[in-house]
Amino acid sequence: MFDRLIKAINEKKNPAVMGLDPLLEYVPQPIVDECIAQYGKTPKAAGEALFAFNKGLIDCAYDLIPAVKPQAAFYEKYGIEGMIALDRTIQYAKQAGLYVILDIKRNDIGTTAQAYADAYLGQTDVFGEKVSFTGADCVTVNGYLGSDGIKPFVDTCLQTDGAIFSLVKTSNKSSGELQDKICGEKSIYLHMADLVDSWNVREGSASGYGCVGAVVGATYPEQLNQLRALYPKMFFLVPGYGAQGGKASDIMGAFDKDGNGAIINSSRGLMCAHMKQNDPSHFQKHTRDAVLAMKQEISPFC
Amino acid sequence: MFDRLIKAINEKKNPAVMGLDPLLEYVPQPIVDECIAQYGKTPKAAGEALFAFNKGLIDCAYDLIPAVKPQAAFYEKYGIEGMIALDRTIQYAKQAGLYVILDIKRNDIGTTAQAYADAYLGQTDVFGEKVSFTGADCVTVNGYLGSDGIKPFVDTCLQTDGAIFSLVKTSNKSSGELQDKICGEKSIYLHMADLVDSWNVREGSASGYGCVGAVVGATYPEQLNQLRALYPKMFFLVPGYGAQGGKASDIMGAFDKDGNGAIINSSRGLMCAHMKQNDPSHFQKHTRDAVLAMKQEISPFC
Repeated sequence: MFDRLIKAINEKKNPAVMGLDPLLEYVPQPIVDECIAQYGKTPKAAGEALFAFNKGLIDCAYDLIPAVKPQAAFYEKYGIEGMIALDRTIQYAKQAGLYVILDIKRNDIGTTAQAYADAYLGQTDVFGEKVSFTGADCVTVNGYLGSDGIKPFVDTCLQTDGAIFSLVKTSNKSSGELQDKICGEKSIYLHMADLVDSWNVREGSASGYGCVGAVVGATYPEQLNQLRALYPKMFFLVPGYGAQGGKASDIMGAFDKDGNGAIINSSRGLMCAHMKQNDPSHFQKHTRDAVLAMKQEISPFC
Repeated sequence: MFDRLIKAINEKKNPAVMGLDPLLEYVPQPIVDECIAQYGKTPKAAGEALFAFNKGLIDCAYDLIPAVKPQAAFYEKYGIEGMIALDRTIQYAKQAGLYVILDIKRNDIGTTAQAYADAYLGQTDVFGEKVSFTGADCVTVNGYLGSDGIKPFVDTCLQTDGAIFSLVKTSNKSSGELQDKICGEKSIYLHMADLVDSWNVREGSASGYGCVGAVVGATYPEQLNQLRALYPKMFFLVPGYGAQGGKASDIMGAFDKDGNGAIINSSRGLMCAHMKQNDPSHFQKHTRDAVLAMKQEISPFC
């Protein structure tokens, strides 16, 4: 259920999530040098560098933010060592009391969707013993395949108090190629929003937001306002703020009248603050400053 | 480009791909026993069991089939050890001369889509050295986000002679919830097929099929016929044959007039043949029999 996330947002008075999308090029040179010194120019060193960077980012921001959102692609890119870094990052973030939204956009059907849900939200049966391999609080999914692909995730959420965000209107330029096509009286992304709403389970959710939310890009403020008006109790994950061009005024409409109902993601704007300042040695200071600036910009809405 | 896959199909005279979706419950007991004896009831033993099973399946079928299709979910379900088993399976299949279609249905935008393409089809820059972590020949993707999410995969395919299949009409019961909605003069899945066709690059493809194909379920023969008629040079990956209910007569329409243009997947029908016979000790014989039976059924079309 999103109640846990809402509680975390209210405690930190900050509806922001820090995206952890660490390309090796973003990792400050002192960390890179140390990892290469220890492990050579190997995938192992790459994985260690990704984790050390993430650890530093979490250490400098965990008291200000309610959540982190690692993007799986940036770990899978570095093979098994990258995936180990992802696992370690998730465990470290959870130990720091952060809510973990794992951005995986998985989609499949039946036992396959269940396998993904087991892997990332739930547990896997290993010779009769239940093992939690990832234990994220929330994952992103893609609902193009319909309810067969979503139900296993929802069932798992109900067992683990987890949640999912399903893509509705994505932040990228070409999102309209399919999503904006008019289908009967409304666009495809609104049909998708109807489906997402139908998949939600709100029973037992004190906030009324249930466990199924929607991804809606900050780069489409009009659509964000429209979706908030149409679905007063749908929780939104809003990417596209900062580096992708979304501004504070663009995301105002994401929140409900009580200032709940949305969390705004910034990845490169926070992680790469040191690159803008050309000061990798003090990356934590620059990220913390960027987190504080973002908080000042968006916390008035919540 | 799909030319390599077409060549492999023609050499084996069999347009079938064996899905490798190994739940631990499917692994024959003798393999399970051996792995537990060596590693205890651990994730390591689970990963070893998955790989040993896949190795056995490949060994008994590689001379009959052109390709295998591991489904990533069934490896991710078992954590890092599962992902190691996936990597080993892909390398083993390639050594056996098989074309590897990695079923991951990834979808994201910009640098994120590029990270997935690097991870699975291309190469990753690790401290200045290019590393190929997976090296699949082909992956599946989901085009809901539009061309921003597909272009990085296509660019990578052009560098590596790879290919992608993008979801169009999926094999599951609820696929129509979104995909069958009528949008102007046609259904959403046909709009998606138009996009998939627009993303294809056919230059340099002797067969004319290029490097971007479509996933169309065997469980929807009418739509399969319709799509073949509309897109004479779109390569189809057809899941849903066998365990999901698709029959040989259902997939006839997938092929072009020369018998090219499609590959039919069966996963549980082949992998789990030993379970139907209740004879895990001879799983290779039963899988080989099932592969031969499938070949007899569908090779007349190609």
